[in-house]
Amino acid sequence: MKLNKSQIQDQNTKSLNSIEEHFNFTANILDKKGIDVNAVIKKLQNLKVAIPSWALGAGGTRFGRFSFFGEPTNLEQKIEDIGVLNALTHTAGAVSLHIPWDIPEDYNGIKALANSLNITFDAVNSNTFQDQKNAKHSYKFGSLSNNSKDIRQQAIQHNIDVINIGEKLGSKSLTVWLADGSSFPGQNNFQTALINTENSLKEIYSNLPKNWTMLIEYKPFEPNFYSTVIQDWGTSFMLANACGDKAYSLVDLGHHLPNCNIEQIVSTLMYKGKLGGFHFNDSKYGDDDLTVGSIKPYTLFLIFNELVYGMKNNTQNPDLAWMIDASHNLKDPLEDLLQSLEAIQEAYAKALLINQTELKNAQLNNDIVKCQEILQDAYRTDVRSLVAKARINLDRAINPIETYRALKVRNELIKERGKNSIATGL
Amino acid sequence: MKLNKSQIQDQNTKSLNSIEEHFNFTANILDKKGIDVNAVIKKLQNLKVAIPSWALGAGGTRFGRFSFFGEPTNLEQKIEDIGVLNALTHTAGAVSLHIPWDIPEDYNGIKALANSLNITFDAVNSNTFQDQKNAKHSYKFGSLSNNSKDIRQQAIQHNIDVINIGEKLGSKSLTVWLADGSSFPGQNNFQTALINTENSLKEIYSNLPKNWTMLIEYKPFEPNFYSTVIQDWGTSFMLANACGDKAYSLVDLGHHLPNCNIEQIVSTLMYKGKLGGFHFNDSKYGDDDLTVGSIKPYTLFLIFNELVYGMKNNTQNPDLAWMIDASHNLKDPLEDLLQSLEAIQEAYAKALLINQTELKNAQLNNDIVKCQEILQDAYRTDVRSLVAKARINLDRAINPIETYRALKVRNELIKERGKNSIATGL
Amino acid sequence: MKLNKSQIQDQNTKSLNSIEEHFNFTANILDKKGIDVNAVIKKLQNLKVAIPSWALGAGGTRFGRFSFFGEPTNLEQKIEDIGVLNALTHTAGAVSLHIPWDIPEDYNGIKALANSLNITFDAVNSNTFQDQKNAKHSYKFGSLSNNSKDIRQQAIQHNIDVINIGEKLGSKSLTVWLADGSSFPGQNNFQTALINTENSLKEIYSNLPKNWTMLIEYKPFEPNFYSTVIQDWGTSFMLANACGDKAYSLVDLGHHLPNCNIEQIVSTLMYKGKLGGFHFNDSKYGDDDLTVGSIKPYTLFLIFNELVYGMKNNTQNPDLAWMIDASHNLKDPLEDLLQSLEAIQEAYAKALLINQTELKNAQLNNDIVKCQEILQDAYRTDVRSLVAKARINLDRAINPIETYRALKVRNELIKERGKNSIATGL
Amino acid sequence: MKLNKSQIQDQNTKSLNSIEEHFNFTANILDKKGIDVNAVIKKLQNLKVAIPSWALGAGGTRFGRFSFFGEPTNLEQKIEDIGVLNALTHTAGAVSLHIPWDIPEDYNGIKALANSLNITFDAVNSNTFQDQKNAKHSYKFGSLSNNSKDIRQQAIQHNIDVINIGEKLGSKSLTVWLADGSSFPGQNNFQTALINTENSLKEIYSNLPKNWTMLIEYKPFEPNFYSTVIQDWGTSFMLANACGDKAYSLVDLGHHLPNCNIEQIVSTLMYKGKLGGFHFNDSKYGDDDLTVGSIKPYTLFLIFNELVYGMKNNTQNPDLAWMIDASHNLKDPLEDLLQSLEAIQEAYAKALLINQTELKNAQLNNDIVKCQEILQDAYRTDVRSLVAKARINLDRAINPIETYRALKVRNELIKERGKNSIATGL
Repeated sequence: MKLNKSQIQDQNTKSLNSIEEHFNFTANILDKKGIDVNAVIKKLQNLKVAIPSWALGAGGTRFGRFSFFGEPTNLEQKIEDIGVLNALTHTAGAVSLHIPWDIPEDYNGIKALANSLNITFDAVNSNTFQDQKNAKHSYKFGSLSNNSKDIRQQAIQHNIDVINIGEKLGSKSLTVWLADGSSFPGQNNFQTALINTENSLKEIYSNLPKNWTMLIEYKPFEPNFYSTVIQDWGTSFMLANACGDKAYSLVDLGHHLPNCNIEQIVSTLMYKGKLGGFHFNDSKYGDDDLTVGSIKPYTLFLIFNELVYGMKNNTQNPDLAWMIDASHNLKDPLEDLLQSLEAIQEAYAKALLINQTELKNAQLNNDIVKCQEILQDAYRTDVRSLVAKARINLDRAINPIETYRALKVRNELIKERGKNSIATGL
Repeated sequence: MKLNKSQIQDQNTKSLNSIEEHFNFTANILDKKGIDVNAVIKKLQNLKVAIPSWALGAGGTRFGRFSFFGEPTNLEQKIEDIGVLNALTHTAGAVSLHIPWDIPEDYNGIKALANSLNITFDAVNSNTFQDQKNAKHSYKFGSLSNNSKDIRQQAIQHNIDVINIGEKLGSKSLTVWLADGSSFPGQNNFQTALINTENSLKEIYSNLPKNWTMLIEYKPFEPNFYSTVIQDWGTSFMLANACGDKAYSLVDLGHHLPNCNIEQIVSTLMYKGKLGGFHFNDSKYGDDDLTVGSIKPYTLFLIFNELVYGMKNNTQNPDLAWMIDASHNLKDPLEDLLQSLEAIQEAYAKALLINQTELKNAQLNNDIVKCQEILQDAYRTDVRSLVAKARINLDRAINPIETYRALKVRNELIKERGKNSIATGL
Repeated sequence: MKLNKSQIQDQNTKSLNSIEEHFNFTANILDKKGIDVNAVIKKLQNLKVAIPSWALGAGGTRFGRFSFFGEPTNLEQKIEDIGVLNALTHTAGAVSLHIPWDIPEDYNGIKALANSLNITFDAVNSNTFQDQKNAKHSYKFGSLSNNSKDIRQQAIQHNIDVINIGEKLGSKSLTVWLADGSSFPGQNNFQTALINTENSLKEIYSNLPKNWTMLIEYKPFEPNFYSTVIQDWGTSFMLANACGDKAYSLVDLGHHLPNCNIEQIVSTLMYKGKLGGFHFNDSKYGDDDLTVGSIKPYTLFLIFNELVYGMKNNTQNPDLAWMIDASHNLKDPLEDLLQSLEAIQEAYAKALLINQTELKNAQLNNDIVKCQEILQDAYRTDVRSLVAKARINLDRAINPIETYRALKVRNELIKERGKNSIATGL
Repeated sequence: MKLNKSQIQDQNTKSLNSIEEHFNFTANILDKKGIDVNAVIKKLQNLKVAIPSWALGAGGTRFGRFSFFGEPTNLEQKIEDIGVLNALTHTAGAVSLHIPWDIPEDYNGIKALANSLNITFDAVNSNTFQDQKNAKHSYKFGSLSNNSKDIRQQAIQHNIDVINIGEKLGSKSLTVWLADGSSFPGQNNFQTALINTENSLKEIYSNLPKNWTMLIEYKPFEPNFYSTVIQDWGTSFMLANACGDKAYSLVDLGHHLPNCNIEQIVSTLMYKGKLGGFHFNDSKYGDDDLTVGSIKPYTLFLIFNELVYGMKNNTQNPDLAWMIDASHNLKDPLEDLLQSLEAIQEAYAKALLINQTELKNAQLNNDIVKCQEILQDAYRTDVRSLVAKARINLDRAINPIETYRALKVRNELIKERGKNSIATGL
């Protein structure tokens, strides 16, 4: 299914006047505060967030999975789904593939399809946390960290294969999420596991094409419940340094211990020029993979404050690979992703409203009350009309979810794909 | 120091037009959504939050305390400080005393002073977590839970004394925060400590005047680091039930384990008619006692959603004793309290914007996306002009902190009290 | 496969002398301390822990499952597996069935088999967290708490069916673990969900046969990631009280927020006569379902201290339903269960060594150092020879795991069942 | 007060025979397992743990402090107290001074006193988290990270002063614990604070004498409640690398987020040759500073497993500065320290019993069950007679606390110092 501009614009007509009015009102207030609203809008227009291919079907937990209807059953349909998101928002202009779930059968066809929907290929993701049919070795006891050289080699080769697939599609980076670790004290020798991992990553790194980056994810627990080899940003950062200039850390918002100050980690990595990518989601307890901004929107704003600051001040840091990484257990995945995209744009917009000069001055004066007022002034501003304006400028939907529902997209997908289609993935 | 209306109105003139404009714009939008804006404003005007007497001086940590200037040195000055807050906001119309830090020397004088500033006497707080000079027994190993009958009796009598003091001032409730617990496994017999506590509370309860309530606070840890007798809402609820109809649980936002869903506790207690009071603050790690809304404003909003729902639907639950309980280690305490009051009003206003009928319908349809949209629509609304309007209607400050600063209140207090005055308390 | 006594005794011969020597040495020391070693041994001999039928196959996480070999493929084989555990330990003399995974086809056959292995039928477990094939309604949005009366009725009826199955087998209690909750703020009305749950539980309760108990489990999160209807012991306790005398709370060690003092909860529930059952496992992060005692053995000991105290002093509390509830993702499930059984016996034995009179006196004297010394004296004692002695007395294995390996049980099971057999369940 | 050998040996006579019997029995069992018991004993004899000067008086919390009797009132008395501990255990042969609380008035006298008690001067600790009387600048808003160059300079100079004091006493390392951070979002610019800290540390480092090391502590929160500049091991490690070869990370057990795998951090730092020191204590909730081993003794054992492994295999890592860092709010500080010393020796002894070759083999075979058995076999062994034997060999107390009590040390100290003496410090 493909949405075209006129469908979207028809839906926009209802609320166009009121949103323009709201925008003008807000822009006027911001203007008086000295904020360059056009510059903000432009940045919102330029934001591109990759959609992971596995997020288009229903997710689940270890206690089971409730299926959803009209799920995409192959890579083409996944890209079409992202096309719908992109048609509505212009923010979803990239896809992040997961190998082996998404190996293209017809590279040219896939590229042409993506191209027709203005979708580019973002980071490719390897998978060494599950065994694949016909695999020679099992990753039950680890992959890149495994004690067995053969198993490590299989995992390294898989990553190289993923790079090769990505290269054919135009990807420019490889994301390595390593589930390796242990569930019981004594199961692993921490140092051996770390050394093996470092060496494996270096070998993968040596196969990285020019202009590619390698993004190293970290996570404290799950699926292993005692230790994880790359348990925190410090370990990821250390490994990225060991690999070289093209290796970076990747921050997934759900991959931290309780109460962790994530925004400070973001800031440190950017200062060191080592923040490569970002996985957005939200969580209350662990790696809950909930809709972005659904639980702790203020933390998201604080993170964007660091991102905005870093993108301006840390020229040593590369452009970030932005991605949503959520699991859609209960909601329509496409609606869930639209809510996530909206939350990202909202947090980004609000962070752009922070008067950095005033903030700096208040900080220098130790005027903590003022510092808080400045952040909260930006945060309390209703920026929905700004985000909508950015979409209007690009012929996108004022209200993506309403439009999605009005156009009965899910019904259409069910018609096309059948009710009980199931997406590949977890 | 006392602020008068004209001082405040002078300050208001600068921004009156723009805030009225903002209010009208927002009210118009809300009106179209079917929201009775006047009713919202009225509720905001009627909110009264007690200021704890100990919050007017600088707080500290176990690593030390950095003093602040112009702190109130006696109860009269504390009430004057609250008078300043109330003059600016009309929300701070009550004081919550802590005994023995705030025993009045001249009851009539204190009452007259409070009355002149439109300040009432909210819950009185007992203190059995510290030893007082000349006390016969030490609370080092517990108070109401102590193995020694004499020590328990001293603590019970102290609570009765506090009730008597409160009665003379017009208070209607006693808040019991019990630090009792243990720092090492084996130190306490849990059952004995619980039984002692239950019996002590019952004895205090039996001394409660008619029309009084007893509020039982809970907290998982600190100052004891292994166990706390009243460790959670379940224990508090159980004890309140054991005492009788006038005993209730009190929720302090910082008194929960990591990741706890506090709003659900609030909802359960209101449903059972057992939520008696509320201590507002914010925290990231433990009982951090930070400014309300400074860390997790969305959680605050969700809690207010439950409070608004309960106040409407749970007629079995009494009127709540609202209080701020924060520790002002770094900021000017009065500015900090103004930020807290603002955050409470903001969260309350946003919760009042939730369309409960629509929400109920979306819930019945399992339309989770819609449920989230409804909450976020309310939360994303910029309600600052509503909160300001409520204050304008009451001749209060449009922007309390700006006015406080413009009127150089702290300088005046320093002049009056001297630079190095120190408040009684922790 | 069935182990017979002579096989086990053959294995015991190797270490019999040295273990008897160790036992005598330890018993002598304990005797001098005034401990009745024979009484301890007798209690260890009498302990019976139920094995959940789902724990006999390999578990997994949401990221996948690595299969194990020779898993039981039907209820008969599951009971045979427990028979192996019981033959080795005598502690595993009960099975806890999970319906619908374990509905017997031949009740008499199953009963006869269990009887022949000295296995009784402990609590039966209902499942309303997954949809079953051919089910009319889905539990995607809740079961006992669902807004739909029809769905609640289906879930209630399922519980009644489970009771009926249990009754035919000789079970005496029903365990209700309710996954119901929400993953997003606003998704549920907390009060409605609680009321629905209370009413549903009452209806199930009204169908409870005489002499049966209903055990209500609680859990803070997972599979729902924002709220869970029965989130903590307080809610479980409240619901058990609402249902009646035969309703109790069930504590699963993994179902608590970080840092929670579980032993205090155990103590409170026993004091109130409302602790009905116990699910043993261990965890570092969440509901990790690891081998009992593998992560926090001292906490396990402290919990057993409360259990031992409560079993002696709280006659108002019923006999407990003891059960292991772990997930065996990496280890041989039978070996894992043997380690769990050993850890439970060890913690129990150590708790039985605590001199309660001395402890009480030290507590009354506020001699915290002494209290800790008393607990640590018991904990630091090497009780393995006591636990082994209890098994020797019952013709069981001195070292169950060594014997299991020496007798090549897993190989036999693979021969019987085939390598790639898969157990029903998650 | 000074204990002499004959006093201690008199006390030992009572239990000498039984402890020797116990030792022989245990040694015999261990010998059969191939463990070199003499080597273990020798290592236990050689362990030296520094006692921090501030731990000899009663600690407190922000809610107050309950005093203890007979506290040391000056540095001489503090060193005498450590002399008592050392006389009883031989493990407490070092003191770690905190400046400015412990500036010697008479260097030669202090050195002579310490020398007479066989006490050496371990790491010296600077204090930039409190303001000192007559200090020109306040650290309210930070010290080494402060925006003000003057304040940073004052803090740097203080650290240099501390080095100078340490040098006069024979210390060889400086411990920097930096409380700097922020309590509110926006208060600090994370990058600026980090850069300032790095530069300040480098300047201190440049003043480090040859043969000295600088130990950089980390901590996630408290006394700041939103962010801490050196929040985790990753930041500490990064800063140590930036400073140079003589800069190391220092691990304090209580300075981690909930559920953190500390032993893995220890392992990583040793592998990188960057673990410089260790602060022992225990905790359940935060930086609770409880007696070592009182809450999570198995975790302590797992940490010692890594330390033992690292000390053998990581020759790149320097000798560690071992220290206890606890707060004695309720117990007699000297008894509390004796319990901590015992817990450290116990964990060390158990870790030394691990058969590393067998463990390695089990790990290579992915025999997780066996790995766990190996660790638990060591952990479950009652090593108290080994620890006692090590003390007997050195003419120390078999049971230090019993001896301390039998010799009525505290009474003597009260006699000498008066009941209400108060130690300098927090």
